Amino acid sequence: MVGIVVQEGTEGVVTLTMSSPKNLNALSDEMIEALTGSLLRIGNDPKIRVVILRGEGKAFCAGHDLKQMTARKEERGDSYYADLFQRCAKMVLTLRDLPQPVIAQVHGVATAAGCQLVASCDLAVAADTTRFGVNGVNIGLFCSTPMVALSRNISRKKAFELLTTGEFLTAAEAETHGLINHAVPEAELATATRELAEKIAAKRGAVVKLGKEAFYKQLELPLDKAYAYTGDVMARNLALDDTQEGIAAFLEKRAPNWD
Amino acid sequence: MVGIVVQEGTEGVVTLTMSSPKNLNALSDEMIEALTGSLLRIGNDPKIRVVILRGEGKAFCAGHDLKQMTARKEERGDSYYADLFQRCAKMVLTLRDLPQPVIAQVHGVATAAGCQLVASCDLAVAADTTRFGVNGVNIGLFCSTPMVALSRNISRKKAFELLTTGEFLTAAEAETHGLINHAVPEAELATATRELAEKIAAKRGAVVKLGKEAFYKQLELPLDKAYAYTGDVMARNLALDDTQEGIAAFLEKRAPNWD
Amino acid sequence: MVGIVVQEGTEGVVTLTMSSPKNLNALSDEMIEALTGSLLRIGNDPKIRVVILRGEGKAFCAGHDLKQMTARKEERGDSYYADLFQRCAKMVLTLRDLPQPVIAQVHGVATAAGCQLVASCDLAVAADTTRFGVNGVNIGLFCSTPMVALSRNISRKKAFELLTTGEFLTAAEAETHGLINHAVPEAELATATRELAEKIAAKRGAVVKLGKEAFYKQLELPLDKAYAYTGDVMARNLALDDTQEGIAAFLEKRAPNWD
Repeated sequence: MVGIVVQEGTEGVVTLTMSSPKNLNALSDEMIEALTGSLLRIGNDPKIRVVILRGEGKAFCAGHDLKQMTARKEERGDSYYADLFQRCAKMVLTLRDLPQPVIAQVHGVATAAGCQLVASCDLAVAADTTRFGVNGVNIGLFCSTPMVALSRNISRKKAFELLTTGEFLTAAEAETHGLINHAVPEAELATATRELAEKIAAKRGAVVKLGKEAFYKQLELPLDKAYAYTGDVMARNLALDDTQEGIAAFLEKRAPNWD
Repeated sequence: MVGIVVQEGTEGVVTLTMSSPKNLNALSDEMIEALTGSLLRIGNDPKIRVVILRGEGKAFCAGHDLKQMTARKEERGDSYYADLFQRCAKMVLTLRDLPQPVIAQVHGVATAAGCQLVASCDLAVAADTTRFGVNGVNIGLFCSTPMVALSRNISRKKAFELLTTGEFLTAAEAETHGLINHAVPEAELATATRELAEKIAAKRGAVVKLGKEAFYKQLELPLDKAYAYTGDVMARNLALDDTQEGIAAFLEKRAPNWD
Repeated sequence: MVGIVVQEGTEGVVTLTMSSPKNLNALSDEMIEALTGSLLRIGNDPKIRVVILRGEGKAFCAGHDLKQMTARKEERGDSYYADLFQRCAKMVLTLRDLPQPVIAQVHGVATAAGCQLVASCDLAVAADTTRFGVNGVNIGLFCSTPMVALSRNISRKKAFELLTTGEFLTAAEAETHGLINHAVPEAELATATRELAEKIAAKRGAVVKLGKEAFYKQLELPLDKAYAYTGDVMARNLALDDTQEGIAAFLEKRAPNWD
């Protein structure tokens, strides 16, 4: 299990690399555990401002580890599946609940639960050669958990088409439909992702944290309750010293004295 | 009433044709009853994998039958309207609840409740000459029921514009905004729709059924509950023999032995 | 406070102009009060069919008045902020609850709560030179209240990007992503907005009112309840004399006798 997720950096922008290229970074039990664990540790470290999530080798992530799933189900019985999907749900909910924004840096393929990972990140940049799919239907396993994230990113009809035909989306299409933020030439993928990460890392971490939490919470509220809730968030934000300094600097037309 | 909806085929891909070209396939009482009835029968037939819904004559469907509505309201009083919209809602909820995916094959015009039909299908392919509208406002009848389906397919501002101006959307715009999956040359409409249908019909019917049901149910749940629910759906899917065979075939790099 | 919001017209299409160009029409206490008050008065006047909301000077609106906010918080203590955001929420909920459609006519910049105003209007037309942003994060104040409206107009990933990077969206991008209806050449902005307004003003006011109310209400309901509710709205709409005349005219292929 050691090394299946590799973390580079300890503050600012941190990169998490899924490192199991032999099976296209499949979400094995070990990968889910390592990724969830890394995220939870990062979540407790306020020196880290932004996380980049990428995959080593030919693909970002090709979804669940079907070989392991089959073997473990033999050993442990039916409850293995229920347990697996609970752990996988915990992993993507950890992405959402992480104080820091997470950017998927996507290349090769992102399929099934790999596509779910992309959809579950706050932001995504992809090489223009990337292919996205929720193609489990081709082998008789509908991508029901991936569709939770997918259908909250793109239109209903397009999501339904991808899920039932098993066809791929190009990176350009993924950008048009809202699954990713930017498709860039493959040679520029790492640079473009890092530039986006550094842009966000230059903001105040406590402010981004408070904003990210509010983003997902308000999405699930009716409009009036969403305003009542975010009005309170604004008041808490304004109580931060850094924010008072940021506003004072803006009014005095000078750079904020934040560091 | 006989023949107002014509079914071709009894298994695989089935085509339902609204066949009342004189009034542009208006959703008369007879049309709603026949369409709902056909759908319910199809829903009970596991040999049918995919449904194509199309209209005979110059248009897909021009909405409610205003002439009949006016006459029947005279005969039966105000309660006729409430009853009509209940039956129409039952029809579109039957589309959603149908085990099989339904593809709208759209040409000519799809207006008012005809546009609602398109939006209510799981998928839609349209001739590039098709015009879409929710233009009841032009005669003083706001398309309030059509907007339920429309506003779950396209952005708020565009939906509001169509509803209040009564203007049309071209097929290309409908594709861009998410109302349809594909706009194709008119001469290729039937072929393109059938190809999409056959692609889906080649999947396991029980798997698509389970996936379609989960698709709409999870859309109305908050994220954590959506994952709890679909995790359970995945476990049920994995318990299917066809799925075990599909996964085994994938791991052994052979075609599944499904038939 | 007199004159900070200027109303032109008393029936048909009415224009509300935010008139504080010195501070880019900032949403000061006075602006919020005047705008809310103007809207509430307009809401009680059935002779008014459509409202255009615009800004005087170089910008549509640059968001909250940070200078005033800072000063008033000094004078009145922490509760000032909570009160401010309640009043601002009331203003945008008044936009939603207004019987008449409101079209934002946007030029220059629409940032932070100014972008929220655009997102909160039912429709928006912008000069192609306009820039949109929710860039409070740059000074340490995350645009948590603006994101409520923004995230109900555009995709999650794009909204998150704008909120955390503080970058601008061009008018063309705003149209693509669904934040505005149309980007037009700057010289045509007033004309294009008025044409859209007059198109809607030519419909029956009572019908548009009933439709707008239903639009936002049904968006927050699950599908079956949305149909039950809008079915009832349709029946109420059909009970209007104007609607009966509109349908009769349509069936008799003549212009409705509405005036």
